[in-house]
Amino acid sequence: MEPELGVATAAPLGPGAPVVAIDVGGTTIKAAALTSDGRLSEPLRVPTPVRGPDSAERVLDVVGQLVGELSATPADAPRAVGLALPGIFDDETGVGHWSENLGWKGVDFSALTARRFALPVALRHDVRAAAYAERRLGAARDAATALVVLIGTGVSAALFIGETTHVARGYAGEIGHAVVVPGGEKCLCGNRGCLEATASAAAVVRRYERLTGAVVPGASAVLALADSGDTAAGQIWESALDALAFGLAHAISLVAPDVIVLGGGVAEAGDTLIRPLQARLEELVRIQPVPRLTRAHFGQDAGLYGSALAARDLLGSEAGA
Amino acid sequence: MEPELGVATAAPLGPGAPVVAIDVGGTTIKAAALTSDGRLSEPLRVPTPVRGPDSAERVLDVVGQLVGELSATPADAPRAVGLALPGIFDDETGVGHWSENLGWKGVDFSALTARRFALPVALRHDVRAAAYAERRLGAARDAATALVVLIGTGVSAALFIGETTHVARGYAGEIGHAVVVPGGEKCLCGNRGCLEATASAAAVVRRYERLTGAVVPGASAVLALADSGDTAAGQIWESALDALAFGLAHAISLVAPDVIVLGGGVAEAGDTLIRPLQARLEELVRIQPVPRLTRAHFGQDAGLYGSALAARDLLGSEAGA
Repeated sequence: MEPELGVATAAPLGPGAPVVAIDVGGTTIKAAALTSDGRLSEPLRVPTPVRGPDSAERVLDVVGQLVGELSATPADAPRAVGLALPGIFDDETGVGHWSENLGWKGVDFSALTARRFALPVALRHDVRAAAYAERRLGAARDAATALVVLIGTGVSAALFIGETTHVARGYAGEIGHAVVVPGGEKCLCGNRGCLEATASAAAVVRRYERLTGAVVPGASAVLALADSGDTAAGQIWESALDALAFGLAHAISLVAPDVIVLGGGVAEAGDTLIRPLQARLEELVRIQPVPRLTRAHFGQDAGLYGSALAARDLLGSEAGA
Repeated sequence: MEPELGVATAAPLGPGAPVVAIDVGGTTIKAAALTSDGRLSEPLRVPTPVRGPDSAERVLDVVGQLVGELSATPADAPRAVGLALPGIFDDETGVGHWSENLGWKGVDFSALTARRFALPVALRHDVRAAAYAERRLGAARDAATALVVLIGTGVSAALFIGETTHVARGYAGEIGHAVVVPGGEKCLCGNRGCLEATASAAAVVRRYERLTGAVVPGASAVLALADSGDTAAGQIWESALDALAFGLAHAISLVAPDVIVLGGGVAEAGDTLIRPLQARLEELVRIQPVPRLTRAHFGQDAGLYGSALAARDLLGSEAGA
């Protein structure tokens, strides 16, 4: 039976099967247990294995260890694993097409995890995992069409249409690599002026440091400087807002979402991000309604929540099959 | 039983219920009968009633007359009507939110047609009707995710994901009103530099005429001039290609379609459009596969074919209900 899921509280995921959730990032792997009463344990954090020819196997070694550690309570032994992976990842086939950070290409994680683990493993792209938490229980949960945009080291999106998460073999949602400033900042993808190269947290820091020669600890520091009247910081932040609005206006023109949920580090700016972005969209979007912009409900652990939900979904679909 | 639909031939829609298809444009209303063996009659063309306070009622008067004329063969009397309407139209509720050309706002065509007509009426947005013909029987028929883009007087798109046509209350697909040249050409929507204001057939003509003082009969004339070495025409055509590639690259970044079908008047340029567009997309799209670009299979009558299919679908779903 599908457990009834409550609203997000201290136990936001509601009662259901105990599972383990793991979110593989470029530098850190996070893992937590979801109990049968819907509580997520304090996440464990271990370094991601260094990129190499056998990265995928070494990441799965760590995943295996973490699942072991998080299975120590026999009363609430996990019945499935939710595993979020970075790069270009196809949630439907479980194939990791490509990861720049981890150096893999065309790895069949579905086959690998089936061979290695006794528990069923729900595989998801990291961005779609985090976005799925918002979709099911967070800020995107009541919208017919929802776009969840994560603005952190990169810029990525997940598109939900009705009950469907749009995957497109793993290639959907890469709005960070659409050009917003032709001939602009160089991007890791090889192009210039991509949204990610202009408005991600990393880009905001890099651009501010290059403009001023100063060193700042993160995008929030640039934003604080902008708030306190620093002209250079203000200029970088304004151009990041312009770029985000420009990219989002293109997304709106095509899919007309009811809501755009903003997550990732930059979204922690809250209204300082949302209000000027909304104002810019009112200018850019004329013949469609401007969607509601809202901050993500789940924070840094959204990927764990979404992976846990995916793991429970997997058990539900197996029971129903 | 769902009739088996053949490939597009002289009778591309295959055997099925006889229906009438009507496509309401800004200046002309086209209508044709689809026979039970899948042949579409030579379309009738009548002028669209002039915009006025009762445009919707007057358009439906004409629709009623056309259905009457096309029901003259008792052997193949239509069992449903497929009606394609312009503007911002919600295929799911049958509400015409807005039409600039016909001057209506918030008209419930579902209620109006139910009251006026004895036959069931399948209501569709004109662009989604034309695109639906491509989806079901044309150039978009085998793709998991397909984008059909019509480049004519305006620029609009229809997005198909699996079995779903994305409607978004009628607001989806308005890529013609995303900005591709900030501060560029004035657009009817009130903004500047929209794709439609830069690269539609109307924009190509308008921009060429303004640049040269010459008068040309249509976009294909500008293209022919560009081909023959006319510098001004070449410049306008290149900038239209740049704008189209830029807008399509944004769409690709978000939804990663397997195929982009290009229809409408400008797409009649065929390879002269598709080859340079493909080359530009290879430059702009780096971390995703560049979708296959292909010319629409159905021509000017795509809206009639799609409406006819929608009318048959409606009968099928009623029979199955």
